[in-house]
Amino acid sequence: MNATIHRSAINIAATCGLYLSLSMLLPMAVDLYYGSPDWEIFGVSAFLMGGLSAATAMATRAGPPPYTKKMGFLVVNLLWLVFCLLGAVPFWMSSLKMDFAEALFESVSAVTTTGSTVIVGLENAPPGILMWRSLLHWLGGIGILALGLFIMPYLRVGGLSFFKLESSDTSDKPFARMAVYTRAFLLIYVLLTLFCAITYNALGMSRFDAINHAMSTVATGGFSTHDASFGYFNSLPLLWAASFFMTLSSLPFSVLILFLVRGRLDTLKDPQIIVFLAYVALFSIAASLYQRLENGVPFHEALAHAFFTVTSILSTTGFASDDYTKWGHFIVILAFIATFMGGCSGSTAGGIKAYRIIILFNFVRSGLYRLIYPNGIHAVRYGPITVDADVQRNVFLFFISYMMVCVAGSLLLGLLGYDALTSVSAAATALSNVGPGVTPSIGPSGTFAEMSDPALYLLSFLMLLGRLEVLTVLVILTPLFWKS
Amino acid sequence: MNATIHRSAINIAATCGLYLSLSMLLPMAVDLYYGSPDWEIFGVSAFLMGGLSAATAMATRAGPPPYTKKMGFLVVNLLWLVFCLLGAVPFWMSSLKMDFAEALFESVSAVTTTGSTVIVGLENAPPGILMWRSLLHWLGGIGILALGLFIMPYLRVGGLSFFKLESSDTSDKPFARMAVYTRAFLLIYVLLTLFCAITYNALGMSRFDAINHAMSTVATGGFSTHDASFGYFNSLPLLWAASFFMTLSSLPFSVLILFLVRGRLDTLKDPQIIVFLAYVALFSIAASLYQRLENGVPFHEALAHAFFTVTSILSTTGFASDDYTKWGHFIVILAFIATFMGGCSGSTAGGIKAYRIIILFNFVRSGLYRLIYPNGIHAVRYGPITVDADVQRNVFLFFISYMMVCVAGSLLLGLLGYDALTSVSAAATALSNVGPGVTPSIGPSGTFAEMSDPALYLLSFLMLLGRLEVLTVLVILTPLFWKS
Repeated sequence: MNATIHRSAINIAATCGLYLSLSMLLPMAVDLYYGSPDWEIFGVSAFLMGGLSAATAMATRAGPPPYTKKMGFLVVNLLWLVFCLLGAVPFWMSSLKMDFAEALFESVSAVTTTGSTVIVGLENAPPGILMWRSLLHWLGGIGILALGLFIMPYLRVGGLSFFKLESSDTSDKPFARMAVYTRAFLLIYVLLTLFCAITYNALGMSRFDAINHAMSTVATGGFSTHDASFGYFNSLPLLWAASFFMTLSSLPFSVLILFLVRGRLDTLKDPQIIVFLAYVALFSIAASLYQRLENGVPFHEALAHAFFTVTSILSTTGFASDDYTKWGHFIVILAFIATFMGGCSGSTAGGIKAYRIIILFNFVRSGLYRLIYPNGIHAVRYGPITVDADVQRNVFLFFISYMMVCVAGSLLLGLLGYDALTSVSAAATALSNVGPGVTPSIGPSGTFAEMSDPALYLLSFLMLLGRLEVLTVLVILTPLFWKS
Repeated sequence: MNATIHRSAINIAATCGLYLSLSMLLPMAVDLYYGSPDWEIFGVSAFLMGGLSAATAMATRAGPPPYTKKMGFLVVNLLWLVFCLLGAVPFWMSSLKMDFAEALFESVSAVTTTGSTVIVGLENAPPGILMWRSLLHWLGGIGILALGLFIMPYLRVGGLSFFKLESSDTSDKPFARMAVYTRAFLLIYVLLTLFCAITYNALGMSRFDAINHAMSTVATGGFSTHDASFGYFNSLPLLWAASFFMTLSSLPFSVLILFLVRGRLDTLKDPQIIVFLAYVALFSIAASLYQRLENGVPFHEALAHAFFTVTSILSTTGFASDDYTKWGHFIVILAFIATFMGGCSGSTAGGIKAYRIIILFNFVRSGLYRLIYPNGIHAVRYGPITVDADVQRNVFLFFISYMMVCVAGSLLLGLLGYDALTSVSAAATALSNVGPGVTPSIGPSGTFAEMSDPALYLLSFLMLLGRLEVLTVLVILTPLFWKS
């Protein structure tokens, strides 16, 4: 049984690896078009990695895969691992002279839609490499949406079953509706990207920049084609447009589907969306008031930057328009909290996510009531729904694991010589797939280029952990998982 | 019913307030002995506050108090509030010219055995004030032990019912064994203090210093009679002695009772003690290696300081022998984590406490197993005991509340203008009743004297929250509590 599962899982991962290798032909074409000699690197990578994937897929060919939980966990981990490793090859071989730790970090950061970079001087990087970063973001975004919609509910990780598209239970036929929804969600994803690119282009970005930033936006990734990120374009309308698309992309994708396919708007009343918007409002007002009063920045300008910054962090995109670490201590703390919080469930955003925080809050409230009246009924609610004990337990499990991994990550970074705030901030931003941290060195104006190789490996692991909702990775690290 | 409860609660608090007022005669005697004119302040305070308490107690005289949960929560909150307020009066009136926020902060810090101070120049403070600070520590320590042994299990806050002295259930007769145990634990507390004072005196402290530090040690408070805390004495044997007594005082008091009264040592196998000692070992080794290798400090000296520092933080005492914020980033992060962790349940130490962290860890492990085999039995264990769902829920409730209060406190401190690390560290050190923070300004070499009045009020509130295990205070802040 175990052998069959391993074989099937490797087969699926290798098949997907083949597709990823083929997708390297796109940046190759870009490099050819712009006359960059790096096109060869993509050609060679595509050939070698494609060949390796195809051979592995062929060697592990088997009947239909067994639909067990074990299989599910294995496939998900293997898939992301293969994407991260294959994604790293062009970086490693490119003219940018990255060592393997840097190449892997850049690739993991791309695939997990984190957006932390080790590349300084993006303006001089080959266009193919820039496109490859955006493409990995974009494909990583599709991956995480598919995972959230079809596989996570089945694995019962992340409590996403809570936000099913339909009220009927799908837990026993996880792949049944795939065909119907896959088409809808892929179409929306592609259209959203196109629409975003056209908007960016219309507002002044070059076509190349617009396409790259659109892919990065819709995937809530955060890679830019310029070191100064959105600050490079120095355009308030672009900030507003990006804020709009980042917000859209951090809403539950099911809400977008229901709205666009069926014209339903009632799903917007989801409490997590309300909390998300409330936090955006709080941050925007606080930051723009501070910028206006303390630094004399015109209000409309301060508001655009504040709104952009908070949607960028909460959606876990990580674009930067300005260095918010200079906006005052209160804003840094708000940004730090936003890093943990993240976007809505069922989107490409990472973090603890608002719905979990709402459930935790309501659990505390009901717990306090229970202390006073132990025999009363004090249900934990999420909007109109009563959250059952099972979902509560999943939320605790996630929250506690998240905190523990964050503490362990910070401690290890401290051991590698980083100061307390940098360590905690780097661990949190990696785990939440945001991108920049809250200290100057790794903040919106900084990069991770100065970090040592061990730190880059550690942060790569944390990004992967965060992207797969922590538990999915932790599960396969338990000895029990590997017992037959 | 509500009126009876309020009346009874006020009566109990006022009666205890009378005793506290009478205890002001001790520092008065000290000031008289040393010829400090501040003796009058204690005399006046004792007279006024004692009179006020007596009048209130008389006015609210009633029959035996109703033993309801509501009564329990109310009495505990009121008792600590009265102690903090009465304790502040001598500081406020003293020759030290403290404003009310400072006096209250100093008093709350003393009563909650936190040990953060706003007084600079302790060497020149009237001896009566120094004695008052130590005495409040010492009485606060008795209060928290009594609370943990007799009242908390009944209120089901903090999961202390888990560590009952006997296996039979006492939840329906919380005050029944009081007489028996009160004598045992008071005797041990007094003997421990005496023994500690004699040791300190023998190792070179003056009698006055020895008595003050002994009271501060046994209560895991942290107030010293010198600005440099234990650094003033410059004696390694004193550091070792203090470490020994701080460790003893952060063990569960029930373990001390069982050992001293019945000669049983098996209770030392409690998993929380093992985790506590493991953390002490990790920190001591890491810090002394770092000090030896990086700064060339002789190993035996580095080890004494490291051991002293970690027992001081973990026991939430907060004495300082050296500025550990200069021992390297890794140590700062370890100290920061230790601040959250705290000592053992059932001692005078604060913090999240090791037994909760063990339960959280084991919950995660069992949760991961459940994800793989949903139908298997995956009990959450604490040593040989299976932790039932009710205790688990209490632990989650405490942990989540603790984190939320810490985040809210940090955010408010940020709003008051403090930087991110100072804010988080100050909130955490107040909530855990440790004392010093991990940044230079509020660290082991700093004080809270520079903090603004609003920040001092906020930190006072956090100290009180932490001391009463958060939930006890949060409960009475819910509207439901006040409904009849």
